[in-house]
Amino acid sequence: MTKKTKTAITPTRSENYPEWYQQVIKSSDMAEKSPVRGCMVIKPWGYAIWENIRNVLDGMLKATGVKNAYFPLFIPLSFLEKEAEHVEGFAKECAVVTHHRLEKNGEGGLIPAGKLNEPLVVRPTSETIIGDSFSKWVSSYRDLPILINQWANVVRWEMRTRIFLRTSEFLWQEGHTAHTTREEAVERTHLMLDIYAEFVEKYLAMPVVKGYKTPAERFPGAVDTMCIEAMMQDKKALQAGTSHFLGQNFSRSSGIIFQSASEQEEFAWTTSWGVSTRLIGGLIMAHSDDDGLVLPPKIASAHVVLLPIFRKPEEKTIVMEFTENLSNELKQIFYHNRRIEVEIDTREIGGARGWDWIKKGIPLRVEIGPRDIAQDSLFVGRRDQGHREKKSIKREEFIKTIKDILDEMQANLFERALAFQKDNTVLIDTKKEFYDFFIPENIDKPEIHGGFALSHWCGSENCESQIKTDLSVTIRSIPVNTKKENGKCVCCGKPADKRVVFAKAY
Amino acid sequence: MTKKTKTAITPTRSENYPEWYQQVIKSSDMAEKSPVRGCMVIKPWGYAIWENIRNVLDGMLKATGVKNAYFPLFIPLSFLEKEAEHVEGFAKECAVVTHHRLEKNGEGGLIPAGKLNEPLVVRPTSETIIGDSFSKWVSSYRDLPILINQWANVVRWEMRTRIFLRTSEFLWQEGHTAHTTREEAVERTHLMLDIYAEFVEKYLAMPVVKGYKTPAERFPGAVDTMCIEAMMQDKKALQAGTSHFLGQNFSRSSGIIFQSASEQEEFAWTTSWGVSTRLIGGLIMAHSDDDGLVLPPKIASAHVVLLPIFRKPEEKTIVMEFTENLSNELKQIFYHNRRIEVEIDTREIGGARGWDWIKKGIPLRVEIGPRDIAQDSLFVGRRDQGHREKKSIKREEFIKTIKDILDEMQANLFERALAFQKDNTVLIDTKKEFYDFFIPENIDKPEIHGGFALSHWCGSENCESQIKTDLSVTIRSIPVNTKKENGKCVCCGKPADKRVVFAKAY
Repeated sequence: MTKKTKTAITPTRSENYPEWYQQVIKSSDMAEKSPVRGCMVIKPWGYAIWENIRNVLDGMLKATGVKNAYFPLFIPLSFLEKEAEHVEGFAKECAVVTHHRLEKNGEGGLIPAGKLNEPLVVRPTSETIIGDSFSKWVSSYRDLPILINQWANVVRWEMRTRIFLRTSEFLWQEGHTAHTTREEAVERTHLMLDIYAEFVEKYLAMPVVKGYKTPAERFPGAVDTMCIEAMMQDKKALQAGTSHFLGQNFSRSSGIIFQSASEQEEFAWTTSWGVSTRLIGGLIMAHSDDDGLVLPPKIASAHVVLLPIFRKPEEKTIVMEFTENLSNELKQIFYHNRRIEVEIDTREIGGARGWDWIKKGIPLRVEIGPRDIAQDSLFVGRRDQGHREKKSIKREEFIKTIKDILDEMQANLFERALAFQKDNTVLIDTKKEFYDFFIPENIDKPEIHGGFALSHWCGSENCESQIKTDLSVTIRSIPVNTKKENGKCVCCGKPADKRVVFAKAY
Repeated sequence: MTKKTKTAITPTRSENYPEWYQQVIKSSDMAEKSPVRGCMVIKPWGYAIWENIRNVLDGMLKATGVKNAYFPLFIPLSFLEKEAEHVEGFAKECAVVTHHRLEKNGEGGLIPAGKLNEPLVVRPTSETIIGDSFSKWVSSYRDLPILINQWANVVRWEMRTRIFLRTSEFLWQEGHTAHTTREEAVERTHLMLDIYAEFVEKYLAMPVVKGYKTPAERFPGAVDTMCIEAMMQDKKALQAGTSHFLGQNFSRSSGIIFQSASEQEEFAWTTSWGVSTRLIGGLIMAHSDDDGLVLPPKIASAHVVLLPIFRKPEEKTIVMEFTENLSNELKQIFYHNRRIEVEIDTREIGGARGWDWIKKGIPLRVEIGPRDIAQDSLFVGRRDQGHREKKSIKREEFIKTIKDILDEMQANLFERALAFQKDNTVLIDTKKEFYDFFIPENIDKPEIHGGFALSHWCGSENCESQIKTDLSVTIRSIPVNTKKENGKCVCCGKPADKRVVFAKAY
């Protein structure tokens, strides 16, 4: 038995991955459970990541012509009912508003009063309410395309919740577009998926697989659902974003009709696409280690923490002045869409201070003591290196190279995640091998969640659900870049012409 | 009778101010009613203003040490009940969630099912749910102050709604802070009011009066409510922002207790403060004219529209190239927190095109035709000048001076609004004069809504409510800068030592 290294997080990933996840969140002070069932409180360190995601992605969406707007939180029940598959998909998890005031009961308590004529559903997604607006905005082909996005909260009454990954209320952006032709709508569906993939890979440093969902896994009411899937460190898949081609389903149910150039009345072709605070859960699980959170610099809540060190009052004056000056200088530097963000931690709590920031995943820790100042140096620790591997760097040098250091860290995180994904993606051609790969009896052990199995599938829902029942494994997607390759369905053995991605998933 | 000038908006302000307001919104395409009672759809041209408000104000809040976070949409009924005055104030207008799924009834329709053990109120404001978090975050004086803000949607089931001014759902920011001492909390209450005043005056170009609410007009549960009040063009007041000193009321009800430096257990002192999408309503009513929306450049949805003019195909190529180049060049210019935003309108709809942009309130309209290009000139119209007062400006000159032009327009709007406010603020010392000023029988006529009356008030709730009943006039605030000045209450004639602001209000 090898000696166990002490880690900042207990349990470690290999001991208990789900519990490790909760502890990483707790010790980084990102978020916590709320007294409202299934809802979370996103604390400043976690919310800052969402702000960064929002700022960057918003710019990328707008660059494709998308405009932001805002639609009502409530959806009349009758609207939801218009699209049969859609309401079927969400009916089991809807928060329903039935009253509009509170009244005293006999005992001095309050009870709901003022019953609504029609119940209102708190939006689980907004196709139906936005579709209603589109139906009013569109009359001619000249009014199309409409490219709309909203940043909003949505509610899905989930039975089993987990912070960031699955919560009753979450934050997201939902894009909704309407087009004159099928081709243009399909093109938009692809474009948004590409943007999500680019954003998640470049900013969150998470490599993704782009693909199509199977009919069983589609968004309720969609003709086609595309998705990006990322691999977490327990080898499970996380759906990180979806883009739906809705055909004319929602334009029929909402009445989005336009007069074409040839003066025909036609139904518009629509799409919708979204990413949510779930991305933060993915971020945590993709990069963090047994010492806590690891944040990709481009999206980190802050980039650098300055840790002034002093014993005597006269040292304090010198050290604090040096620290403030350094902070001001760093804050002038632009690094990918924003200025360098600096924290200064003056708490006198000894070594716990450095560990707090390791657990918070800040990319760079800079210790500043009288001896460092005497040499015009800083003592710098990187979150992607061991906590003892700190290095003395000249102040000027640090300022000159901080962007390169951060870029290098960002690239390292992506490369590491990509290597992990590649190492755990395997071609499997026989049922035995496939079942061995996912061994359900050992499901508690993260090291045998398997990974991504690229295997043939005959296209039948029977085989798909058989595998789901036996192994809790689903088809994550039919990859966009999959090639024709004759083989046999990994479940029934019938002929199949391409491989799909099977995995356990969040 | 003078000849009536044709206006783009019907009716005009003097004909019917409330209807003019609705028409300005409609013709600028900012927002519209939704099928959900009292909720609005904020369209891109209106939402862009909210984004600009958010971006600027968020930076100002953060500069005072405030951090953003996010708390649940739902508040358990028992939480709301903890503070007696608070729940009393909101009970009549709460959207209440009572069920968490939908089930088929006998006839194929859907009905609410899965009744909740405890009803959930959709947040009308978040003191109680955030107070619960604070109670967990605070144990020592070292944990204070806590300075938190959230950008969120809230719901108040208003009976009479009007887009932006009073809607069942609206967007806002709500700040919540906790402190060790009363003094620090009071100081924060003032600081946030000052920031609101600075923001509203500098960015929305609306002069405001800072003051204290009377006890009758306080936020439910507050010890003191401060506010900024602006004057609309119909001389009515609009409360544009509030900042509340909550004393220890909410820390008692939520249990926000800290151990002081002298090891005593004490209740924290809290504040809350907010501004909402109502500001957009104020913006419209403060500056717009009978030709539609007028937007202060610093907060405008976009700054410039380019209107290419061509007849022949060969002209089109030249004009469009020139237009695109100009657009790209303008977009490089930074103007107060963001780059110049440019729209290009290529619709071939003749004169209606220019009028559309006048109604949308864009600060600058730039016509570009072959003759302009031949002289390297642009034909520029300003929204603060008559629609015929367009001027030819050399391209280089325009690019060089656009920031100055916009700043000048911004300053003009503020000066005009300030002059209007001053002209319609009067000292009134007798009851007769006071009642004449607000003449209730002519209330429909905007020119006699009165204005701001600076009059003495004895401090009694009786006088306050008498005036409210007689004239629909309320005390907007006891101004911060009011001076001691002996006089007689304008209602009962008893001695009073300072003037307060009376007005009709939105």
